[in-house]
Amino acid sequence: MNVVLLGSGNVATHLGLALKAAGHDILQVWSRVNDHASELAEKLSARPVSGELQSLSNAGDIYIMAVSDEVIPVLASRFPFKDKLLVHTSGTTDMAALSEGSLSAGVLYPLQTFSKQKKVNFRNIPVAIEGSSAGITGVLHSLAESISDNVFFLDSQKRLMLHMAAVFACNFSNHLYTIAEEILAKQGLGFDLIRPLIAETAEKVQSFSPSEVQTGPAVRNDEITVHKHLEALKDAAELRHIYEILSQSIKKFYPGQ
Amino acid sequence: MNVVLLGSGNVATHLGLALKAAGHDILQVWSRVNDHASELAEKLSARPVSGELQSLSNAGDIYIMAVSDEVIPVLASRFPFKDKLLVHTSGTTDMAALSEGSLSAGVLYPLQTFSKQKKVNFRNIPVAIEGSSAGITGVLHSLAESISDNVFFLDSQKRLMLHMAAVFACNFSNHLYTIAEEILAKQGLGFDLIRPLIAETAEKVQSFSPSEVQTGPAVRNDEITVHKHLEALKDAAELRHIYEILSQSIKKFYPGQ
Repeated sequence: MNVVLLGSGNVATHLGLALKAAGHDILQVWSRVNDHASELAEKLSARPVSGELQSLSNAGDIYIMAVSDEVIPVLASRFPFKDKLLVHTSGTTDMAALSEGSLSAGVLYPLQTFSKQKKVNFRNIPVAIEGSSAGITGVLHSLAESISDNVFFLDSQKRLMLHMAAVFACNFSNHLYTIAEEILAKQGLGFDLIRPLIAETAEKVQSFSPSEVQTGPAVRNDEITVHKHLEALKDAAELRHIYEILSQSIKKFYPGQ
Repeated sequence: MNVVLLGSGNVATHLGLALKAAGHDILQVWSRVNDHASELAEKLSARPVSGELQSLSNAGDIYIMAVSDEVIPVLASRFPFKDKLLVHTSGTTDMAALSEGSLSAGVLYPLQTFSKQKKVNFRNIPVAIEGSSAGITGVLHSLAESISDNVFFLDSQKRLMLHMAAVFACNFSNHLYTIAEEILAKQGLGFDLIRPLIAETAEKVQSFSPSEVQTGPAVRNDEITVHKHLEALKDAAELRHIYEILSQSIKKFYPGQ
């Protein structure tokens, strides 16, 4: 397909690279910031566009907005082609946010954490799609299947819940890694010590349900250890609070232990 | 070495298997519960022992207690050989808890999450050691190096902090996976959807610092998404609270974003 990409961040970059690798033509990359458009456009052999959306090519089969949530309705309201397929990539934004932009609307939400620094294999990434008509859903299904082996339909409300689950499992877990790194650093210990444990914890739930493999003092109801840890955190109110409420949540979840 | 193992849980099992594979002789497996002792002893070609510690063989070079923290001082006080090397495997318990049991005391703490269901490669597991004398530290160093490529000295206070860091990075992360599974299940969605994301999140921090690769609405200061998620959690007070304090902690950690 002929693709016009709006956005130049992590999602735009990884999605653009995957689409190009699958043989699609990226005609243009639009970004508010000219340099950002140029940088990504070069990677995708596309033309950079900036400023008003009037300068978008009308030769696109699909216009994909990989921009932050608050920008989606703004760009949609300025989208110049009411008959062209306009798509966003957000987990949280309702498809209806595109209705001002085009009658042909859809969502293509790749469920992954993208960082500029790290390549990902898009074929393993689950992609949730939604279209404003059965025809559009079909088109998005084909497009998504050209880059991913795991494409499924999800309406906007369920997509929001999927995104929220991802925030718990990914964004919040990563912050707990950061907290661990800080605790170790204060002892002069490196994060390397804990990397195998993090890898194993994530590896385990690839084949088990996480509730089957929960370990640690809270699930064992080991009050002595919990107390020692809370003592060690007595001068770190925020960490102590996080430790307490997560431990309580674990105890509540496994009352029989 | 000739090893006597006290305990039959996850740590005892995985440690026993690693020691046996490295060529050590596991003479006996002691457990409070006879069946448990028998089950693990069979796997380790060892003799099962139960009941009073008087029935422990005096032919051991080392007596390793892989038991829960509250049991350590109890067993230590009943340990019959004051001149034999007595070791525990706890992250949280001070080495001093063994002083009633033997003058030769030590700690061998493998930093990993062990589940009965899943094999681990012990060579990758960091093992923290501590001995009541330089000689004992040396003995424990050799023993630990026979099963792990990552052996290091750590005193009891620092080991407690390492264990606490592990609780944040591993036990709490796993519980966040469980929360995600629950959220998905309520929507009729399977945990499979989120497994690649969990794998990638842990994989990323194998080469980056977690603070370099934090993603999600809180670090982006995306109040719209945070608000939508909190709205979606309005009937789940506990999850809402966890969401709020982890988001606040992230925002505080990245004030410049």
